[in-house]
Amino acid sequence: MAQENLSVVLHSQGDLRLENRPVPEPGPNEVLLQMHSVGICGSDVHYWQHGRIGDFVLKKPMVLGHEAAGRVLKVGSAVKHLKSGDRVAIEPGVPREMDEFFKNGRYNLSPSIFFCATPPDDGNLCRYYTHNANFCYKLPDHVTFEEGALIEPLSVGIHACRRAGVNLGSTVFICGAGPIGLVCLVVAKAMGASQVVITDLSAERLKVARELGADFQLTVKRTDGAQQLAKRVENMLGAQPQVTIECTGVESSIQTAIYGTRSGGVVVLVGLGAEMATVPLINAAVREVDIRGVFRYCNTWPMAIAMLASGQVNVRPLVTHRFPLEQAVAAFETTRQGLGIKVMLKCDKDDQNP
Amino acid sequence: MAQENLSVVLHSQGDLRLENRPVPEPGPNEVLLQMHSVGICGSDVHYWQHGRIGDFVLKKPMVLGHEAAGRVLKVGSAVKHLKSGDRVAIEPGVPREMDEFFKNGRYNLSPSIFFCATPPDDGNLCRYYTHNANFCYKLPDHVTFEEGALIEPLSVGIHACRRAGVNLGSTVFICGAGPIGLVCLVVAKAMGASQVVITDLSAERLKVARELGADFQLTVKRTDGAQQLAKRVENMLGAQPQVTIECTGVESSIQTAIYGTRSGGVVVLVGLGAEMATVPLINAAVREVDIRGVFRYCNTWPMAIAMLASGQVNVRPLVTHRFPLEQAVAAFETTRQGLGIKVMLKCDKDDQNP
Amino acid sequence: MAQENLSVVLHSQGDLRLENRPVPEPGPNEVLLQMHSVGICGSDVHYWQHGRIGDFVLKKPMVLGHEAAGRVLKVGSAVKHLKSGDRVAIEPGVPREMDEFFKNGRYNLSPSIFFCATPPDDGNLCRYYTHNANFCYKLPDHVTFEEGALIEPLSVGIHACRRAGVNLGSTVFICGAGPIGLVCLVVAKAMGASQVVITDLSAERLKVARELGADFQLTVKRTDGAQQLAKRVENMLGAQPQVTIECTGVESSIQTAIYGTRSGGVVVLVGLGAEMATVPLINAAVREVDIRGVFRYCNTWPMAIAMLASGQVNVRPLVTHRFPLEQAVAAFETTRQGLGIKVMLKCDKDDQNP
Amino acid sequence: MAQENLSVVLHSQGDLRLENRPVPEPGPNEVLLQMHSVGICGSDVHYWQHGRIGDFVLKKPMVLGHEAAGRVLKVGSAVKHLKSGDRVAIEPGVPREMDEFFKNGRYNLSPSIFFCATPPDDGNLCRYYTHNANFCYKLPDHVTFEEGALIEPLSVGIHACRRAGVNLGSTVFICGAGPIGLVCLVVAKAMGASQVVITDLSAERLKVARELGADFQLTVKRTDGAQQLAKRVENMLGAQPQVTIECTGVESSIQTAIYGTRSGGVVVLVGLGAEMATVPLINAAVREVDIRGVFRYCNTWPMAIAMLASGQVNVRPLVTHRFPLEQAVAAFETTRQGLGIKVMLKCDKDDQNP
Ligand SMILES: NC(=O)c1ccc[n+]([C@@H]2O[C@H](COP(=O)([O-])OP(=O)(O)OC[C@H]3O[C@@H](n4cnc5c(N)ncnc54)[C@H](O)[C@@H]3O)[C@@H](O)[C@H]2O)c1
Ligand SMILES: NC(=O)c1ccc[n+]([C@@H]2O[C@H](COP(=O)([O-])OP(=O)(O)OC[C@H]3O[C@@H](n4cnc5c(N)ncnc54)[C@H](O)[C@@H]3O)[C@@H](O)[C@H]2O)c1
Ligand SMILES: NC(=O)c1ccc[n+]([C@@H]2O[C@H](COP(=O)([O-])OP(=O)(O)OC[C@H]3O[C@@H](n4cnc5c(N)ncnc54)[C@H](O)[C@@H]3O)[C@@H](O)[C@H]2O)c1
Ligand SMILES: NC(=O)c1ccc[n+]([C@@H]2O[C@H](COP(=O)([O-])OP(=O)(O)OC[C@H]3O[C@@H](n4cnc5c(N)ncnc54)[C@H](O)[C@@H]3O)[C@@H](O)[C@H]2O)c1
Ligand SMILES: [Zn+2]
Ligand SMILES: [Zn+2]
Ligand SMILES: [Zn+2]
Ligand SMILES: [Zn+2]
Repeated sequence: MAQENLSVVLHSQGDLRLENRPVPEPGPNEVLLQMHSVGICGSDVHYWQHGRIGDFVLKKPMVLGHEAAGRVLKVGSAVKHLKSGDRVAIEPGVPREMDEFFKNGRYNLSPSIFFCATPPDDGNLCRYYTHNANFCYKLPDHVTFEEGALIEPLSVGIHACRRAGVNLGSTVFICGAGPIGLVCLVVAKAMGASQVVITDLSAERLKVARELGADFQLTVKRTDGAQQLAKRVENMLGAQPQVTIECTGVESSIQTAIYGTRSGGVVVLVGLGAEMATVPLINAAVREVDIRGVFRYCNTWPMAIAMLASGQVNVRPLVTHRFPLEQAVAAFETTRQGLGIKVMLKCDKDDQNP
Repeated sequence: MAQENLSVVLHSQGDLRLENRPVPEPGPNEVLLQMHSVGICGSDVHYWQHGRIGDFVLKKPMVLGHEAAGRVLKVGSAVKHLKSGDRVAIEPGVPREMDEFFKNGRYNLSPSIFFCATPPDDGNLCRYYTHNANFCYKLPDHVTFEEGALIEPLSVGIHACRRAGVNLGSTVFICGAGPIGLVCLVVAKAMGASQVVITDLSAERLKVARELGADFQLTVKRTDGAQQLAKRVENMLGAQPQVTIECTGVESSIQTAIYGTRSGGVVVLVGLGAEMATVPLINAAVREVDIRGVFRYCNTWPMAIAMLASGQVNVRPLVTHRFPLEQAVAAFETTRQGLGIKVMLKCDKDDQNP
Repeated sequence: MAQENLSVVLHSQGDLRLENRPVPEPGPNEVLLQMHSVGICGSDVHYWQHGRIGDFVLKKPMVLGHEAAGRVLKVGSAVKHLKSGDRVAIEPGVPREMDEFFKNGRYNLSPSIFFCATPPDDGNLCRYYTHNANFCYKLPDHVTFEEGALIEPLSVGIHACRRAGVNLGSTVFICGAGPIGLVCLVVAKAMGASQVVITDLSAERLKVARELGADFQLTVKRTDGAQQLAKRVENMLGAQPQVTIECTGVESSIQTAIYGTRSGGVVVLVGLGAEMATVPLINAAVREVDIRGVFRYCNTWPMAIAMLASGQVNVRPLVTHRFPLEQAVAAFETTRQGLGIKVMLKCDKDDQNP
Repeated sequence: MAQENLSVVLHSQGDLRLENRPVPEPGPNEVLLQMHSVGICGSDVHYWQHGRIGDFVLKKPMVLGHEAAGRVLKVGSAVKHLKSGDRVAIEPGVPREMDEFFKNGRYNLSPSIFFCATPPDDGNLCRYYTHNANFCYKLPDHVTFEEGALIEPLSVGIHACRRAGVNLGSTVFICGAGPIGLVCLVVAKAMGASQVVITDLSAERLKVARELGADFQLTVKRTDGAQQLAKRVENMLGAQPQVTIECTGVESSIQTAIYGTRSGGVVVLVGLGAEMATVPLINAAVREVDIRGVFRYCNTWPMAIAMLASGQVNVRPLVTHRFPLEQAVAAFETTRQGLGIKVMLKCDKDDQNP
């Protein structure tokens, strides 16, 4: 076993370091993984830039990274479904308690959940990492490690589209064409949405959206009125969309989402913005437009793997940049500048393939 | 047939008149009803005081009243399930078109729906009234006309509790103990809620709530902080409620509703306030607290009758005042002043019983 | 207006005639249609061969046909959303009463529903036909009449997959690769099913299934044991399917469906067989495998049109034979012999295109 | 700590013994309990009489009992929410693996679940017993141990009524008035069912049902025809029930359940009978009457405690017999003979109160 475990550690706001940590030993229900591919998420960059997200505050050094796949090196004594050599995708959230949320199938809401790279829990942007084996899922041979790593953002899209009730023939409006808006798009089409409109400030991001299957793209300006935008979306589709998935967190975009959704429809809030938002709540209420939040995901990995294996969704075009783990700071800088869509860090010195 | 049809007509903001109108003839799918009991609703008073509610503006004289029960005098040629003499409760909303909402079982959302006493559609605060027979429901002998009339506000409670998913063992928080908050209370208990907390500014209304089965009452002040109130509700119940039903429309109360609801739970918005509201939407989103509006109701009458017939719910204590139709203005004044809970107008000169 | 209305009329068991009937006049809520394309259904052939299906018995001559599309020639006085010249697909079931089923959005269950070519209601295998305008849906320019006609069988598949809860990543087992099994297959894939296994006695029909996207085909023999078949399906998929859609009506196939479905999953019964069936009900019960029937469909046309318009589903390969209306008997004979998949009758002398 | 642990052990079919076993030590996530009250279940008697239930076969001596409540004597090192002295109700099923069923909130379907007194897992009809602390639920002071023990059968009723979708105003038909039929009755009324009809062969059991709130009782004979019985139920209610809960497992009663349920309604199968059943499946399918099984329960204890604490349900009248643990064989004989409803064994020598 290698003795060095190069890791990307955030020491405090702005202080991102590459350092060697010991190689951990798996507990009875854990596996030791050799990390292969880890995507950089907006939240990783946010912790780096701000040292916190909402109530989660960095108080001691923390390894970043939670969009990850790797190979099993060693299995704990109680692990049965995995063996050394298996290639796995990692679900970063692992409930610590069998509380009411876990028992009810909504373990993402468990307040004491372990979550990679959410203070104080370490992430997996490193060479060697241990994780609960029940939250590691074997990849079929023809699904790549990078596809495995992309299951994490994809899961946000799956959870959002499930909570939205996207179904065959649904018309869908997606606000924002960042990585999250784009996975929502890909998932909505795979669930049978007949028409998807997507907005963004950036025409470039909308170009990617078109390539990924968006039926309509709408370039917006920060100053556009919410009701006017809602009307333009309706005109594009010929009727208001049944489902809107808000992926910007911007107040005016949430307003557009509400005004723009058909009576009896659903607005899903994925984007996270300011604590208080001023919105046309009555408009939603009297038209019975439901407003549903999304907190990460639960129960998405097995079916995401099924989808990737069957070719129902293709997330490969999302990866626009790759860096070896040693160049993590440059990789983070790329994401910070909003270049491309998804940046991958390659953690295995001997295999830097997708 | 009597030739006089005394009716309560709103001519314009503040101008409420009692006047005689012709007795109408039922169309083929209609019944002619001799009105018996009609409750006064907050919305009737609002039209009287303001001449409008939101986008619904009084432009020509309109008969008020939509919480009503009466007796069938004459049936249209195509009506099969009713006959002269039947006592019926009236569902005031009748869809005009077989549009997607009606076909999907959500006819309350049909934009072209007829609705009693919503401009420009006349209500039934009068002696003789015709209505679509499919929206008149026969009352069993031991259900009174007043209970029949109370099915309308009760239906708001049923629809709210259904959309909230209240179920056996649910813990429920109701904001506001006006007529609507109280029917939500009665329905929540009948659906098996184990604990209900209810708030109001008025200690007197909370006393009625206690009599109707509320487990906890909380007198609030306009200046109480939303998070503090939420905490007090949690302390009363020992845990946050799974369901909150907001029945005031007041912004700070909506905030309390969001902060106060358990992760994975539901806030139902019944109360109607200002167009824009500033609320902790992110708090709701990351805890997956769903926000669902209520617009009136659909598919409630048959089961409301079943409940009243079986004694599962008792709404009789809600009626605190009665006036003969001739004294409609005094009756409206009573409601305007917030005296008691529900004021009934008695439209049948020969039978002023409940 | 043409004076002749050539119609395919079933006079009694085995007695199918082409005869001229008067051209009807549309009522106020109806449209008069010039029929273009009408598919032949197994039920049409069944009435011809047996004079009845279950409790529905032919007692007087009846026009056959219910999978249809045509062009509006004339609109009734109350019709607003259609105009002469519009190309429409026809939903053959029109509820006659606003009963509890209709009000609840499940109008297909209304016992008094009108349904084309179900005794005693006439179908639309003719030149000119009137239908309730609310159940005629405008086709976009690039959706053909035949695609419009195919919405009827497609709707069975949509309703079945909806009731099955097929979703992204679902694994699905379909019993029978007749027209109905095949539309279920197409819809399941469009809803995101990751893997579909389909069975049939006929290797030829399974070849079509493979072309339409089935991941696995299994040729079965009448003598195969239900549990053995269930095991083979599990082996193919690597796990039991979450959803099984039974499209044969054969008892042993229903048994296979139950044994073969994963605990907590769903068996949908589309196929209609003998009145009594001997099945392993306890096996379903203790594994909480729900058994749900399908009776036609409701609320499928608008979204089926959306899907066809967006290219999410392709049903064109289902049409294997075409006959002019005049050769209806030969067309019926083709379906009776089980040749090909779907036979289309072309009712417009001047336009026999798809 | 006492050194003797008197236990009711089934050695083989017909061979039930009282014997002393060692007092166990709690593991880190377990609690050691002093057992107080344990109800005898039909399944306990079935193992005694037949040595097996379906595929579960007694192969070595097994402690019986799974309807239980006791007091915490000692807590494992990792247990936080309980302390010595707490009175708890025991959920007998504890999932052993975090498999897909557990993660999805349906842990009762997990194939590897531990379940008290299901071979080879020991039950808790003894003096001292250890159990996973996450499946022990603290009882409020005014909820008795016996009520705690009755949560187990009550949970079957809760799970059945939840899966049935019983709601305010539902009309419900329950087949069989044994302990399970009766808890379904109590729960259905607490969920707001407006009318409940219940059947049994025994007029005596129906008398208990009436006392517990059944609106109609129907004494049946084994020879009654299924369709005739279904018609009698319809006549009693004035319409077919929306929900039927089958609690006998008898084939003819399942047939009655299907014929008797309203179109679009639900039949829940709780009763467990022969492996194969001959039933009118087509009748269910074409009327979209869903058939849903029940396997024990999940997520019922916390809300059952809430209900008992609030007085929404009263299960105390179900206990008709009590025996000290030493007289277990006499107690089992009482249940075997079908005397009374529920027999309680009192396991604490110093406290034989309810
Ligand atoms: N709820 C969850 O569990 C969860 C999980 C992951 C991400 N998120 C949130 O989702 C959001 C999107 O994540 P991302 O990684 O795609 O972020 P991102 O910043 O890369 O993308 C956001 C996009 O929105 C666009 N945008 C900004 N204002 C807009 C407006 N008014 N109208 C239309 N588009 C506008 C931006 O141009 C950008 O392309 C973030 O708020 C993130 O915090 C939430
Ligand atoms: N959505 C619908 O379909 C629908 C139908 C009927 C009524 N409504 C709305 O429901 C609301 C209630 O109707 P109502 O007839 O009971 O009205 P009401 O005015 O009689 O009752 C409102 C109650 O809320 C109390 N209240 C005010 N501020 C409060 C606060 N901060 N905290 C707690 N309580 C507070 C008041 O004291 C009053 O008792 C109204 O807004 C009405 O417009 C909606
Ligand atoms: N529920 C509804 O609303 C509804 C609507 C339309 C059709 N249906 C029913 O659906 C069924 C299918 O309709 P269709 O038009 O496709 O009929 P079809 O007869 O053309 O197709 C049935 C197919 O099942 C195959 N089959 C027979 N036994 C089999 C077995 N043991 N295993 C596997 N395959 C087997 C046959 O070879 C045939 O290809 C019929 O029973 C029809 O009555 C129901
Ligand atoms: N699915 C589960 O998880 C689960 C859990 C517990 C019990 N059960 C099953 O539930 C059933 C009921 O349990 P129980 O403890 O009440 O049993 P029980 O034997 O005490 O009660 C059954 C009752 O049904 C009556 N009955 C028999 N035939 C009848 C008929 N044709 N019509 C009407 N009533 C008839 C009997 O007289 C008896 O009173 C059993 O089959 C049991 O195995 C299932
Ligand atoms: Zn991320
Ligand atoms: Zn009102
Ligand atoms: Zn057909
Ligand atoms: Zn039991």
